[in-house]
Amino acid sequence: MLTIAVDAMGGDHAPIPEVQGSVAAARTQDVNVLLVGKEDVLRAELSRHDGWKKLPIEIVHASEVVTMEDNPAKVLRTKRDSSIRVAARLVRDGHADGLVSAGNTGAVMAIAKTVLGMIPGVDRPALANPFPTIQGKPAVLIDVGANVDSSPRMLSQFALMGDVYSRLVFHTESPKVGILSIGEEEHKGNELTKAASQFIRTLPLNFIGNVEGRDLYTGHADVIVCDGFVGNVALKVSEGLVEIIKHLLKESFESTVASKIGYVLSRQALKDFRKRMDYSEYGGAPLLGVKGVVIICHGRSNDNAIRNAIRVATESASERVNARIESEIARWQSENGQIAAG
Amino acid sequence: MLTIAVDAMGGDHAPIPEVQGSVAAARTQDVNVLLVGKEDVLRAELSRHDGWKKLPIEIVHASEVVTMEDNPAKVLRTKRDSSIRVAARLVRDGHADGLVSAGNTGAVMAIAKTVLGMIPGVDRPALANPFPTIQGKPAVLIDVGANVDSSPRMLSQFALMGDVYSRLVFHTESPKVGILSIGEEEHKGNELTKAASQFIRTLPLNFIGNVEGRDLYTGHADVIVCDGFVGNVALKVSEGLVEIIKHLLKESFESTVASKIGYVLSRQALKDFRKRMDYSEYGGAPLLGVKGVVIICHGRSNDNAIRNAIRVATESASERVNARIESEIARWQSENGQIAAG
Repeated sequence: MLTIAVDAMGGDHAPIPEVQGSVAAARTQDVNVLLVGKEDVLRAELSRHDGWKKLPIEIVHASEVVTMEDNPAKVLRTKRDSSIRVAARLVRDGHADGLVSAGNTGAVMAIAKTVLGMIPGVDRPALANPFPTIQGKPAVLIDVGANVDSSPRMLSQFALMGDVYSRLVFHTESPKVGILSIGEEEHKGNELTKAASQFIRTLPLNFIGNVEGRDLYTGHADVIVCDGFVGNVALKVSEGLVEIIKHLLKESFESTVASKIGYVLSRQALKDFRKRMDYSEYGGAPLLGVKGVVIICHGRSNDNAIRNAIRVATESASERVNARIESEIARWQSENGQIAAG
Repeated sequence: MLTIAVDAMGGDHAPIPEVQGSVAAARTQDVNVLLVGKEDVLRAELSRHDGWKKLPIEIVHASEVVTMEDNPAKVLRTKRDSSIRVAARLVRDGHADGLVSAGNTGAVMAIAKTVLGMIPGVDRPALANPFPTIQGKPAVLIDVGANVDSSPRMLSQFALMGDVYSRLVFHTESPKVGILSIGEEEHKGNELTKAASQFIRTLPLNFIGNVEGRDLYTGHADVIVCDGFVGNVALKVSEGLVEIIKHLLKESFESTVASKIGYVLSRQALKDFRKRMDYSEYGGAPLLGVKGVVIICHGRSNDNAIRNAIRVATESASERVNARIESEIARWQSENGQIAAG
């Protein structure tokens, strides 16, 4: 049975969804949960869940809390007993097989990089965001904010890591890997995408070239590679748009009596619809490239998101995603020394 | 009465929506339309509209057609009698007050730049895309694809031009100008956004700093400045997401009998909703920075989009957007010579 450390103090509504999601995971999944944070706070929160003492949940005390406003570099130097850092140490020391955090993304990345270290041959960790496609199976956008001003070489590494993740966690046989650009034709793009395409083309991947923003949700590609600035904008624009659409839809439904009746009758359909658009079903984004399983959740994660993130963490650990990334990068380096050294 | 030249051969379904939209504009707006393209084709298409001969519509012959696949640079050298180029000449020579095209965006931009020339002090034309916000009034994203690998100075010019457009066409009193980035805090962003923010802060604008992708549709900012690569991705991601949401919503509504009845009863609400999300209501994106009014429409524009683009073109011309951009840039240059020269 695998063990996952959950940073219980990180999210916007911590520790409520973290504790509730962990309890749900411990009840329904084959997993041990280490809840990391202030012991008294977590014990009080856990006591609200009947029979939690019989569940495979333990509290691991951490005296400090990283806030969303904290500067990641400063957190590294000062908050050495934060819930994120204690969770990372549990992974490093083999007490946990992965960690889940809905906390300050920059701080989680910095701590993961420092405490766990990088997989040999990977320059920078990348955040891989799974998202729904019209074809039903999820695709993954990498990177969505861990790195800005990426180099072509970094994008090549993102492509390799995304490919491994898609194969092992989404069980895609030969993931179609695309690069996010502004036209399908090869000559369209910016300096980065053009140079990165040249690199990625030489890798043992099913590379399909440029993918446009409108193809993100079509399932046209299983792995979409981009600089973290662009990926973060794409992700946040999508989130914002889903919110506005929900709002406009609700307003439209409230405009006439017939619409209101229609709304009541179609409530289940709208509920299904919302569920399909719901980020929390996808359970967080893996931070790939660090030596250890790290799943980063949205700050406003609910209990469902935490529960699913714990599932994703156990899958990543049991499928040995990191070992496979290490071997793929090593293979790439031995075959293309000049790229890896570039 | 103003005169607008419409490239009738450019869009994916040309000349049908171009002719239909022009007829609708001539019927309902105070405007002359010059339909530019193959005379026989346009005459045949116009003849399908009763009483068109009494409308203020004229055909201007152009023997060549630019396709979506044509390379813009090659079009400039070879297709010298294309409908886009003839339309641009009509504007340059004072026969038209603006042009509308749903054709090859790259070709329209290249031709506009070459035939019309740039406004003094503007380095590169920028495509400003209006889009709906939750507050009801539209905001504008600039640039959405005319330029990749922009410089901080270019982004500053986009900010000035977007501000003028928002004031004159959307009648926003003191437009809030933001820069698209990956966090609200000043230190978040990439090299470009950080350097551009420094510049923009010195301009006589209501600059609100960083804006996140999720704020695009909230109306938090009236003008959002970005590099064309990022803007194009944001725009295309949004388009793709609206499509997938319509699809998922339809699927959900078809799942049960109650939902189907609900769907019928709420049809008007859904129609209203679609209309509010419909790009064609906004009538195309102005290409700012060239000496002349140029409105670029989506390749798959319908007649409603063309009709609205003609309206936007007449508004831009009557509000003298370009003259105002020229004077704002000149003022900026005289006050900040070092930036303009940088």
